[in-house]
Parts: sequence; C-alpha cells; structure tokens
Amino acid sequence: MIPDLKYKDGGLIPAIIQDVNNNEVLMLAYMDRTALQKTIETRRTHFWSRSRQRYWMKGETSGNVQIVKEILYDCDEDALLIKVEQVGKGACHTGNRTCFYRRIDL
Amino acid sequence: MIPDLKYKDGGLIPAIIQDVNNNEVLMLAYMDRTALQKTIETRRTHFWSRSRQRYWMKGETSGNVQIVKEILYDCDEDALLIKVEQVGKGACHTGNRTCFYRRIDL
Repeated sequence: MIPDLKYKDGGLIPAIIQDVNNNEVLMLAYMDRTALQKTIETRRTHFWSRSRQRYWMKGETSGNVQIVKEILYDCDEDALLIKVEQVGKGACHTGNRTCFYRRIDL
Repeated sequence: MIPDLKYKDGGLIPAIIQDVNNNEVLMLAYMDRTALQKTIETRRTHFWSRSRQRYWMKGETSGNVQIVKEILYDCDEDALLIKVEQVGKGACHTGNRTCFYRRIDL
C-alpha cells in the first residue's frame, strides 16, 4: 500500500534515484501519484516530465532502465529515495553515469 | 564561483544531502541563492524553510550540523547534491540517522 505522501508544486514529489550497489546518487526527478503507482507496478522508474508535460519511463529510448529495488520516503512524507539497479552505461542523457558530474568550487 | 542554476518553484532548488563517508542519503531540503551562498561561505548547510518562511542552518538547535565537503549540480542545473560530514547522531529530527527511514512495500 502506498502511504499518504505530500504532493506539492503541482502534485509532484521529488524522487532521488540512488544506485543500490554503490550508493551513488544518479539523478533527481519528479513523480505524481500515477508515476509512483507505475513505478511500483512495473518495478521500473516512471516520472512526470514538467518540461514535456507527460509521463516517461527512464530508459524508454536509451534502454538504460532502472530496476527498482527499494522505495523509501522521508520523515516529512514529501520526498522519495528510490534504490535501483541501473541498466546500461548510466542514468544521465549526457553519457555520464550520474547526472551530478559537475562540482562547485569551494 | 556559483554556476547559473535554475531556481524554480518560488526561487528554490532541491538539495540532496549525502553522507560523505558511507554515501547514505540523509535528507532533502531546499535552498535559494542566499542559502547556497551561506552554505558555501560557512561550509555548513543552510536552507530555506518553506513552512516557516525563514533561513535555517541544519543543526542550529540540535547541534547536529553538516560540514560541507563537496557540492555537485546536475545536468539540468536544477538540483544539488551536497556531500557532508554529519556531526552528532544524525540528520533527522526524529532521532534517526537519515530522514529516509520508512519503506514502501513492493
């Protein structure tokens, strides 16, 4: 059963996607209730694209799907942490393994 | 120098906070430009609280501050990943080490 989560900002909840094997954070994207339901049912991550205004399955064109191993939610019930097996070269459309490949100088 | 990031939803960008030592995802919170600037300058995480409408430094009351080790940003420039040394027992106000301590049944 899906817990009662807080969907804000147009019915969306942020989902952090983490590699279940090495704990690398791969990406952050947004789900609504339907995308979360699809994710649970298919064990593949589904998101709502704010820019394209449609659902998308990660890897639907690249083949780099994400096999869902664990879904966690936070104390405030307004964020998800999804641990996945990343298929293929990586999560990022740039070809990098993670979308977080650039650093701010400290 | 801070790159040109995309601040959405009221000038905010989500920041994933990750333990630099074991790669555990500890929490997700929101920053605006000022909070990010404070975070860089002080090497302590600062956020904008949407519910309280004010800036807060993580650990300002509990003492469980987060010492910033690395700040990354994603390909879309609309999310941050901040690696920290978590001081004290943990990041969550519930006493848990991570805010993501509950699981959705698959």
